[in-house]
Amino acid sequence: MEQQDPRVADLGFARVDVDRAARTGDPEVVFGAGKTPDQVVAILRTLHAEHPERAVLATRLASEALDAVATELPGATVDVAARAATLGPLPEPRGRVAVVAAGTSDGPVAAEVAVTVAVHGSAVDRIDDVGVAGLHRLMSVRDRLEEADCLVVVAGMEGALPSVVGGLTGVPLVAVPTSIGYGASLGGIAALLTMLNSCAPGITVVNIDNGYGAGVHAARVARQSAPR
Amino acid sequence: MEQQDPRVADLGFARVDVDRAARTGDPEVVFGAGKTPDQVVAILRTLHAEHPERAVLATRLASEALDAVATELPGATVDVAARAATLGPLPEPRGRVAVVAAGTSDGPVAAEVAVTVAVHGSAVDRIDDVGVAGLHRLMSVRDRLEEADCLVVVAGMEGALPSVVGGLTGVPLVAVPTSIGYGASLGGIAALLTMLNSCAPGITVVNIDNGYGAGVHAARVARQSAPR
Amino acid sequence: MEQQDPRVADLGFARVDVDRAARTGDPEVVFGAGKTPDQVVAILRTLHAEHPERAVLATRLASEALDAVATELPGATVDVAARAATLGPLPEPRGRVAVVAAGTSDGPVAAEVAVTVAVHGSAVDRIDDVGVAGLHRLMSVRDRLEEADCLVVVAGMEGALPSVVGGLTGVPLVAVPTSIGYGASLGGIAALLTMLNSCAPGITVVNIDNGYGAGVHAARVARQSAPR
Amino acid sequence: MEQQDPRVADLGFARVDVDRAARTGDPEVVFGAGKTPDQVVAILRTLHAEHPERAVLATRLASEALDAVATELPGATVDVAARAATLGPLPEPRGRVAVVAAGTSDGPVAAEVAVTVAVHGSAVDRIDDVGVAGLHRLMSVRDRLEEADCLVVVAGMEGALPSVVGGLTGVPLVAVPTSIGYGASLGGIAALLTMLNSCAPGITVVNIDNGYGAGVHAARVARQSAPR
Amino acid sequence: MEQQDPRVADLGFARVDVDRAARTGDPEVVFGAGKTPDQVVAILRTLHAEHPERAVLATRLASEALDAVATELPGATVDVAARAATLGPLPEPRGRVAVVAAGTSDGPVAAEVAVTVAVHGSAVDRIDDVGVAGLHRLMSVRDRLEEADCLVVVAGMEGALPSVVGGLTGVPLVAVPTSIGYGASLGGIAALLTMLNSCAPGITVVNIDNGYGAGVHAARVARQSAPR
Amino acid sequence: MEQQDPRVADLGFARVDVDRAARTGDPEVVFGAGKTPDQVVAILRTLHAEHPERAVLATRLASEALDAVATELPGATVDVAARAATLGPLPEPRGRVAVVAAGTSDGPVAAEVAVTVAVHGSAVDRIDDVGVAGLHRLMSVRDRLEEADCLVVVAGMEGALPSVVGGLTGVPLVAVPTSIGYGASLGGIAALLTMLNSCAPGITVVNIDNGYGAGVHAARVARQSAPR
Amino acid sequence: MEQQDPRVADLGFARVDVDRAARTGDPEVVFGAGKTPDQVVAILRTLHAEHPERAVLATRLASEALDAVATELPGATVDVAARAATLGPLPEPRGRVAVVAAGTSDGPVAAEVAVTVAVHGSAVDRIDDVGVAGLHRLMSVRDRLEEADCLVVVAGMEGALPSVVGGLTGVPLVAVPTSIGYGASLGGIAALLTMLNSCAPGITVVNIDNGYGAGVHAARVARQSAPR
Amino acid sequence: MEQQDPRVADLGFARVDVDRAARTGDPEVVFGAGKTPDQVVAILRTLHAEHPERAVLATRLASEALDAVATELPGATVDVAARAATLGPLPEPRGRVAVVAAGTSDGPVAAEVAVTVAVHGSAVDRIDDVGVAGLHRLMSVRDRLEEADCLVVVAGMEGALPSVVGGLTGVPLVAVPTSIGYGASLGGIAALLTMLNSCAPGITVVNIDNGYGAGVHAARVARQSAPR
Repeated sequence: MEQQDPRVADLGFARVDVDRAARTGDPEVVFGAGKTPDQVVAILRTLHAEHPERAVLATRLASEALDAVATELPGATVDVAARAATLGPLPEPRGRVAVVAAGTSDGPVAAEVAVTVAVHGSAVDRIDDVGVAGLHRLMSVRDRLEEADCLVVVAGMEGALPSVVGGLTGVPLVAVPTSIGYGASLGGIAALLTMLNSCAPGITVVNIDNGYGAGVHAARVARQSAPR
Repeated sequence: MEQQDPRVADLGFARVDVDRAARTGDPEVVFGAGKTPDQVVAILRTLHAEHPERAVLATRLASEALDAVATELPGATVDVAARAATLGPLPEPRGRVAVVAAGTSDGPVAAEVAVTVAVHGSAVDRIDDVGVAGLHRLMSVRDRLEEADCLVVVAGMEGALPSVVGGLTGVPLVAVPTSIGYGASLGGIAALLTMLNSCAPGITVVNIDNGYGAGVHAARVARQSAPR
Repeated sequence: MEQQDPRVADLGFARVDVDRAARTGDPEVVFGAGKTPDQVVAILRTLHAEHPERAVLATRLASEALDAVATELPGATVDVAARAATLGPLPEPRGRVAVVAAGTSDGPVAAEVAVTVAVHGSAVDRIDDVGVAGLHRLMSVRDRLEEADCLVVVAGMEGALPSVVGGLTGVPLVAVPTSIGYGASLGGIAALLTMLNSCAPGITVVNIDNGYGAGVHAARVARQSAPR
Repeated sequence: MEQQDPRVADLGFARVDVDRAARTGDPEVVFGAGKTPDQVVAILRTLHAEHPERAVLATRLASEALDAVATELPGATVDVAARAATLGPLPEPRGRVAVVAAGTSDGPVAAEVAVTVAVHGSAVDRIDDVGVAGLHRLMSVRDRLEEADCLVVVAGMEGALPSVVGGLTGVPLVAVPTSIGYGASLGGIAALLTMLNSCAPGITVVNIDNGYGAGVHAARVARQSAPR
Repeated sequence: MEQQDPRVADLGFARVDVDRAARTGDPEVVFGAGKTPDQVVAILRTLHAEHPERAVLATRLASEALDAVATELPGATVDVAARAATLGPLPEPRGRVAVVAAGTSDGPVAAEVAVTVAVHGSAVDRIDDVGVAGLHRLMSVRDRLEEADCLVVVAGMEGALPSVVGGLTGVPLVAVPTSIGYGASLGGIAALLTMLNSCAPGITVVNIDNGYGAGVHAARVARQSAPR
Repeated sequence: MEQQDPRVADLGFARVDVDRAARTGDPEVVFGAGKTPDQVVAILRTLHAEHPERAVLATRLASEALDAVATELPGATVDVAARAATLGPLPEPRGRVAVVAAGTSDGPVAAEVAVTVAVHGSAVDRIDDVGVAGLHRLMSVRDRLEEADCLVVVAGMEGALPSVVGGLTGVPLVAVPTSIGYGASLGGIAALLTMLNSCAPGITVVNIDNGYGAGVHAARVARQSAPR
Repeated sequence: MEQQDPRVADLGFARVDVDRAARTGDPEVVFGAGKTPDQVVAILRTLHAEHPERAVLATRLASEALDAVATELPGATVDVAARAATLGPLPEPRGRVAVVAAGTSDGPVAAEVAVTVAVHGSAVDRIDDVGVAGLHRLMSVRDRLEEADCLVVVAGMEGALPSVVGGLTGVPLVAVPTSIGYGASLGGIAALLTMLNSCAPGITVVNIDNGYGAGVHAARVARQSAPR
Repeated sequence: MEQQDPRVADLGFARVDVDRAARTGDPEVVFGAGKTPDQVVAILRTLHAEHPERAVLATRLASEALDAVATELPGATVDVAARAATLGPLPEPRGRVAVVAAGTSDGPVAAEVAVTVAVHGSAVDRIDDVGVAGLHRLMSVRDRLEEADCLVVVAGMEGALPSVVGGLTGVPLVAVPTSIGYGASLGGIAALLTMLNSCAPGITVVNIDNGYGAGVHAARVARQSAPR
């Protein structure tokens, strides 16, 4: 017979892992897709009660869930662009992550990266609208790229931006393909393949629209980096 | 019962269209893949005899076929890099096509573009090794891009070069994906998808490794362009 | 720190490139998919104010955005079939592009090609309903094909029309696959593959339903062509 | 325990169905791929001994198997182009099948269709090299298409020929995609998709390079047709 | 300039081919997907007026279009199961087509086959619910299979029924994959591949859910068959 | 620092798990693909020395490895058809697995199933050449199917056999797709999809050509079954 | 002419197989997807009237169908989580199946497995929320895994759980991929491929979200197992 | 006209970028696939002559190229397992990368990671043969995972290992899918998809078999990490 495990909180509809920070150094996170607003609120409240001294994060929240969090959890911070919310104090930032987005439509994914990085303990520098079809914009922010401890580059359509950025600098780089596009973009598969085949060395890739995953990796890299 | 058609020469193993120039303004072309050296030589000889005043082109020649052409057709010009051969005088070039290649491995496809353009009546400007991971090389040839009547941009791996070139200039541009790559490059499908989804407007695309098709389109565009 | 770039207008929700004509000779274009009617109106108004002497184009507009443009921008021309709008005077046309569509269902994409060509500076000749299953229709317009400086051939289902047209003439040809079809058409992938594998030489291809991209390429080719 | 089944001959390495003609009206057939020359010879000999009064067919024979059949089965007829062999007298032909091939490279598949049709009891009319990029060839054989009881149209690359033929005539039509092509032809998948999505009604399709299957269907249709 | 073509009726929103029967022996057909109810009614009325002595067929009609046809064209026959309608007298049937469906869910496609066969001039024998997981049902209708001039076998999910039927009889057989299924059925691709790879010889295949195409082929085969 | 683990034997080029029987009740197995003959012999010898009282199995052996095992391990039993070898005494069989194969070409995979079942402790009943295109063969072995504790059904091409067998009996059934086929069989993907979408309930599936995996599952099921 | 078959009940809109238990030992099952609430109720009522002494099962019921069953069939048991219903007494359980689910979102599929197992005659042990990213949860239930006669392991996203469970135990294991995920999960294809390629031997797989199929297989295995 | 660029060395068959270290802090690298042994030797020699004080790396070397390097460049170090070679002194290592491989067959890719990490300036800790089907091996090295600054986890087949490792620790992790597998592994695509869909947060992925790319990213992360 299974014993009561202190590392798990049982909410009836979900068993919540409250031991994650000890194991990985990261905050608790709620993946909101497919959860009702009430479930999201309940899980955030439970996780926050376990560890009120650090932030919890909820991502992929539908509009109704964003509203429910704003109404029922007054201490929460809702980020509409990122479709995310946090509850509890953000950690003191260590290191810096530059989040680079190719087009306006890639904004929501870039916003998810940014909030994830902040909750996971690094500073964020947002750089938007620097698509490869207008290189002068990218060139004008080259210094900010070099000063980051990790880069997250977000792009849909053909997803070429990480290759260009990766050719300019040796900062660790995570590429995020987005589902922006149509026809032969295949819901983001085209951008994903572009990034996996990049001729610029050292580029790593996450799933389509997975701003959260990229943010976790980048924050881990940045917060362990030696100050410059 | 089918009548004897003067537009067709019957060689037994193939019926050769000798009316193409009248219909399209282009030379006769032999697609060498899957043909024996003897067949290649015979078709070239037949086509040349019909119209000795203009060049015929053979592409996708295996080494044995290249050797056979060199040995048995003394007037032929063999282009080993392009795996191609021509027989008969090249036309006087009208307009100019710049052929831009991303990496050394893309060279054979770029060479096929170049010989095709020349046989179809335009001048060629070859620009090699200008991959997106080293933008300074591309910037140093920007004037040559602007001076062309049509651009052909050849790239394998992630195939991002046409997007970058297409953002720099408004010259008509044809992108050629190559099969250079491994794993998730899927034999060139990744580069093909990249080019089809380019955020730079006006880029058109041909099949993987189809230097011939890109060369035909570019030469047609260049030779009808008004002089500058 | 990034400086103020005179080539970019910052609208808050988007940074708009107002330097494009200088760089490529083409007008500014707004890709309307995913933008609110208010955003479309605002961007059109901004771009028009920068350069009132030339047209700007907005494509992929939802019905609400088409209505908003018609209501709030009295000088705009709305093309319902193409789901597009223009603001500002069209350029004097140079050269001519023939836009050939296979079936009635391909009409919206052909209309997007046509308005794009006009805004980018060439004359348009529309030829509709000339599918390969009724060749007599195609044969009856053969002269119009020959008289164009560039052809754009639009087809869904099996996408065979560009191969047939490309066998009839040597005019530069851009093929546009559409998403019309069902089952094994795979949302237009079948037509796209057909066009990429065409046995008619010199055919180039754009993304599924990308009438805009084909129109840009064709207009660039036509307007630089020498008069005949 | 399984009883001895008179409808099956056991050769040790294979159980051969000798009851097929009774069940379907068709001859016995050996699929030679993956079989040794000795196995091919043994199966042909066994099937012929069971029913010496009618032909058996072997397809997909490697060169060694073709040689072995020619040497060891003097009564056999070897068709090198089709990579096939027959043993025993062909049936008296009823009806006629026109086998139309787009290009020279599609010849082996067309030859497999032809020998299959003959063994299955119909007359064959071969029409080669009538690709869609040169419609005048096709137009010149239009009468022969109309006079057939069934059409088999063989094409690789983009596979557009069946659509064009299907628009010219109402004769039952079977389309055979071939693996001829490269890059985005995906080993014949592109041609297969083209044929499945044809806008010409009534076209049916078989597997890539499956000349045998198309021949069986066409012969069944032709031999049951009323004389004209 | 294009001349007025008597083979085409111009409705403004569509050019209707009224010459099809002369060219192929088949009736006119309207593909209703994507057309408004008013357009469907108008095209049916025009085609019927041209040739009141024979039926026209409309397929893929939405509920609104079925209602509009029933209301506005009193002479029309509406087949709700098939989502189709006919207008004008059906031809005298020649030959017989057996339409075999694997499961209840495949019924709409089988109904489209049936109405198409009837309009194209053959008799129909419907055989439903004979899936491969209950062979006894199939065995009980074996005589009806043998008595048909052509078989159309409709199946979704794994699509195995045509292989089993094709092993029982030598009657010409057309297989129709349906989109019934989920997960790895890939919208009917699994059934399509099954049928293309059938080990039963002579099976031909049409696009997913393409009951119309299968019906046209089968009716053409059946109506030209010699009486038995 | 990692300590010496008694459950692992270190051979330098591989760490061999010698604890598997304790954990799962199954014998040790060597996957021979990619291993040199010397490596295969060495691993078999090591595993046999650890547990001489039970058999070890090597699968996917190239011809050279089969020869090396036969020569250097006199106690080994080599199964050429299965490309496998065993060393050590087979366990006493419990229960029975019927291994059903559709065609002669599927024989090697069926043989791999059989040897795997025997080594894993069950009796085997081989039933070959019972393809769906000749149902009478299958019907004649129906009793043997019912008497088995588990069925493994092996089929390439369209892979329909498991559906038919699964409709005849309620015995647990594992389906094995093979890579036999061409063109749209996609190296076995078509058969795999067929089996995953089977309308016969309770069919489970393994990877293409994975006779070993199917054999392990079936033996586990059979040896724990109550005697009948 | 087909005779009345006592093994089939004809409801007009469906022919229902009432002979399944005799043939396979399993209950009748209604696949509810695509059926109206009235049809579901009618089929359940008919099947129950034929064999009131055993349960019938309906799966994939929409909310409206669940409501209709609850209202109109008072004896029915509705399982909202599983979207399923049963009517008639469950059989006495023989053997036990452990149903292991990776995440909360996989719950509905696990519930479908559970109800299917119960109706097919085995006991169920549900083990939820044991994803691979928190192995301690899995380790704490290891005894329950070992005590089962068959395991069903349900997982979406990357689908790695069956490999981990399969490495811990030799109990027969069926893996069920779910469609939970986004982007490159391709609607469950990623999890399906993971499970098919598992390095843990003896894992068999069913279609995406096919809890019913896995439950049938597992119950058949468990109920024939010897008691322990 | 292009000027002489001091950042590029022209070898005739290739233009070599000798400015990379200044731009990215990384050494020069030669991708050996498709290059002749002579070309590999020449490029290594050139790069080494430019910067004798630091190492250059050549990867993807065929056996002939490995031999040529060993013979003609006495100062080179050849790593046969990794199919790689280095020339010039390795940098002083900063930080540490743990390279974890699932199976023996994944060894060559893990070796490429290791040599790349060393050349790019970090220490390497190799951990082999820790597949998910035997978790006890993984548990025994948990301390070594925690002590690394970056993890690279290499796995073929179903590629589940990164998910399990990623659940144990919060160290930055790069996953490398390998092409080891067969059938539905699709040449490594299955493992790639598994890793992209991992439920363990923060995992990033590179192309199939791309040990080099993973090594570059990991070394960049490790060498900038603060000492612990």
